[in-house]
Amino acid sequence: MNIIEIIEKKRDGYALSHEEIKFFVDGVTDGSIPDYQISSLLMAIVLNSMDDAETASLTYEMAHSGHVQDLSMISGLKADKHSTGGVGDKTSLVCVPVAAACGVPVAKLSGRGLGHTGGTIDKLESIPGFSADVSMSDFIDTVNKIGLCIASSTAELAPADKKLYALRDVTGTVQSIPLIASSIMSKKIATGSDCIVLDVKTGSGAFMKTKADAESLASAMIKAGEAAGKKVSAIISDMNVPLGKNIGNSLEVIEAIDALKGTYDKHFFDTCIKLSSEMVSLSLNIEKSDAEKKCVDALLSGKALSKFEDMIRAQGGNSDVVNDYSLFKQPLYTYEYKAKKSGVVTGIDALACGKASCLLGAGRLTKTSPIDMSAGIKLNVSLGDIVSKGDILAYLYSDKSDISDSLNILNSAYTFEKG
Amino acid sequence: MNIIEIIEKKRDGYALSHEEIKFFVDGVTDGSIPDYQISSLLMAIVLNSMDDAETASLTYEMAHSGHVQDLSMISGLKADKHSTGGVGDKTSLVCVPVAAACGVPVAKLSGRGLGHTGGTIDKLESIPGFSADVSMSDFIDTVNKIGLCIASSTAELAPADKKLYALRDVTGTVQSIPLIASSIMSKKIATGSDCIVLDVKTGSGAFMKTKADAESLASAMIKAGEAAGKKVSAIISDMNVPLGKNIGNSLEVIEAIDALKGTYDKHFFDTCIKLSSEMVSLSLNIEKSDAEKKCVDALLSGKALSKFEDMIRAQGGNSDVVNDYSLFKQPLYTYEYKAKKSGVVTGIDALACGKASCLLGAGRLTKTSPIDMSAGIKLNVSLGDIVSKGDILAYLYSDKSDISDSLNILNSAYTFEKG
Repeated sequence: MNIIEIIEKKRDGYALSHEEIKFFVDGVTDGSIPDYQISSLLMAIVLNSMDDAETASLTYEMAHSGHVQDLSMISGLKADKHSTGGVGDKTSLVCVPVAAACGVPVAKLSGRGLGHTGGTIDKLESIPGFSADVSMSDFIDTVNKIGLCIASSTAELAPADKKLYALRDVTGTVQSIPLIASSIMSKKIATGSDCIVLDVKTGSGAFMKTKADAESLASAMIKAGEAAGKKVSAIISDMNVPLGKNIGNSLEVIEAIDALKGTYDKHFFDTCIKLSSEMVSLSLNIEKSDAEKKCVDALLSGKALSKFEDMIRAQGGNSDVVNDYSLFKQPLYTYEYKAKKSGVVTGIDALACGKASCLLGAGRLTKTSPIDMSAGIKLNVSLGDIVSKGDILAYLYSDKSDISDSLNILNSAYTFEKG
Repeated sequence: MNIIEIIEKKRDGYALSHEEIKFFVDGVTDGSIPDYQISSLLMAIVLNSMDDAETASLTYEMAHSGHVQDLSMISGLKADKHSTGGVGDKTSLVCVPVAAACGVPVAKLSGRGLGHTGGTIDKLESIPGFSADVSMSDFIDTVNKIGLCIASSTAELAPADKKLYALRDVTGTVQSIPLIASSIMSKKIATGSDCIVLDVKTGSGAFMKTKADAESLASAMIKAGEAAGKKVSAIISDMNVPLGKNIGNSLEVIEAIDALKGTYDKHFFDTCIKLSSEMVSLSLNIEKSDAEKKCVDALLSGKALSKFEDMIRAQGGNSDVVNDYSLFKQPLYTYEYKAKKSGVVTGIDALACGKASCLLGAGRLTKTSPIDMSAGIKLNVSLGDIVSKGDILAYLYSDKSDISDSLNILNSAYTFEKG
């Protein structure tokens, strides 16, 4: 077997065998296949695609290119949840404690954010004292004891994916459903959970701009996960507008706590219930309608909030933040972003809000740049609201005294029609 | 302008502008674009192709990525001839002196062979004393004095093509008409001739397996050459069977001398007359039928042979070889390759013959491996001949005492039908 023949086969539109895909992934992992051959094959995959069997093979081999987490010391079917990335997407902060409150063991290994999409770990670290750097034995002990833990991965998961991901970013080979599906699912499979619930975002602030693409991606991910022996389900959710009201690390934790206390934006609440119901249904093997009832009860009864507090304490954080938001780091400046004209709000572009929030300090511009935990945006109007010139559309929080770059972006985020 | 956007544009099926192609070629030449981005774009070009304008831009920019030969010190329209590569293809050795004998200045910069296709320079260097290492001033002086010279290039012509060619070879991106056309034409344009005659081979022993592909390639090359201000014409010729009888360096020179002396295989003769007529017609700006008459006369009158002898002498070779073939290096062994069954010869596969000859020692397996000038194959039967078991199909010449690898390949080269 040689890589040139494999490239030519895909170039000519044929499906690759499992052995050929394994040869490729092994070569990516051990460095024996040079980058220029990898990128040539990646472009052939982008243009000639891969069928379900190929995508499943690529997913499996990438998942097994490094350490695969062993969660067998935790009893029950472990459930994980993954979002393809959105703006203001703090659903994990609600779904994880809701599912745990329903009796689902959640041993979640999560990542940090880059650019305009936030990371769950970053958000949690805005809680004073909270640490996601948990040893694997503590991780397993915590889940066995309190039912949930969210940690950053210590071992290198799916190193082949990491390499491919970096190369795709600079070779115009990001946009490919089989490549996106296998990238996401290989990491999820490597984190060791039995059940994987996917939240596939669609719209301006999402990777998938159309619903049809989101459905194709969901279908490819479900098949790839099931081929690896996982229980998988997916929902498609809108990301044309930001999810909920708050964008930014501590701001999103606060909105999640508000929801767990019973005060929430309806769209955000519905999304959280949908996702946690899927987790509960898969893990406990019960009907979705029963799972949904359990989840609503867990949320409205305060049981989920209590689980969230347990988790904060177990991971070294100060759980008093739940009742005193002033314990979070406070921003140096609060700006009021006002309407420049009157009308009905017909659009709040998620991508623009994400970028503006990132520039306020909430996101990383590079992998190593620091994050301002208190920076971000709090939306003050919703779609359909009638606003008058001068009304406050949003509050902006930052340690920066000059936020003109964020304002420039925000100016294009809002669409109005005459009311 | 950035390379990722250019890759994405081609990936998405759009035509690249001249400026974008220049940016790409400049980046290839100066090394600022890494190989993995080049190969990604190459694969996108293979799969989404390029239109005539893009191919012309790529050709022009690659031709001008290094030194472009200035032949203005030679009066008249200089004509060059290029074959896309075949087995037993010694047409240049006949066409160049024929065209020169007709008054066409031929200042030919040529290459060496690799693998189963030979190179004109290698063939000429089988003549004792002949040197293709000619300084540019001697090269121009020789053409002005005797009307022809065939030299290996001293300056680096089309370095961007050289880099892309090497990368294409290992990234499954060889098979693309715009890439092949621009690679060939960029080098031809850089060698400075005014008229370029192309011999596009089609069949098993050629790069283009079908006539339709050969026609597309010819058309793309003509357009790219004309866009760069050259006079260009092309013929399509068969390469399912080897051209003529002899394959190998001195063996091909001998067959060319035989032809210049009036003894020739008809197909080989016809191809040579067609190609030299095109050179004469373009350079002297005369009708093709008149050009053809001139060429046939030049060949049959011995004027072309005399030009060939002039060239050998001017480049330090012993022109006595023309009358005494024993002056060529002789092989240690001569083998008779015999028919294993009786029947009508319906196929002599060019590719198989080329590979077998290469293994006898006639070709380079790597760029730096030595060549056995006397090694090769002399075909003893033609298509349509009736042979009996035990008849000699070919004579094989080599310095090797074990030629089993060549024999294995030859066994699959011949096809017979019951007579």
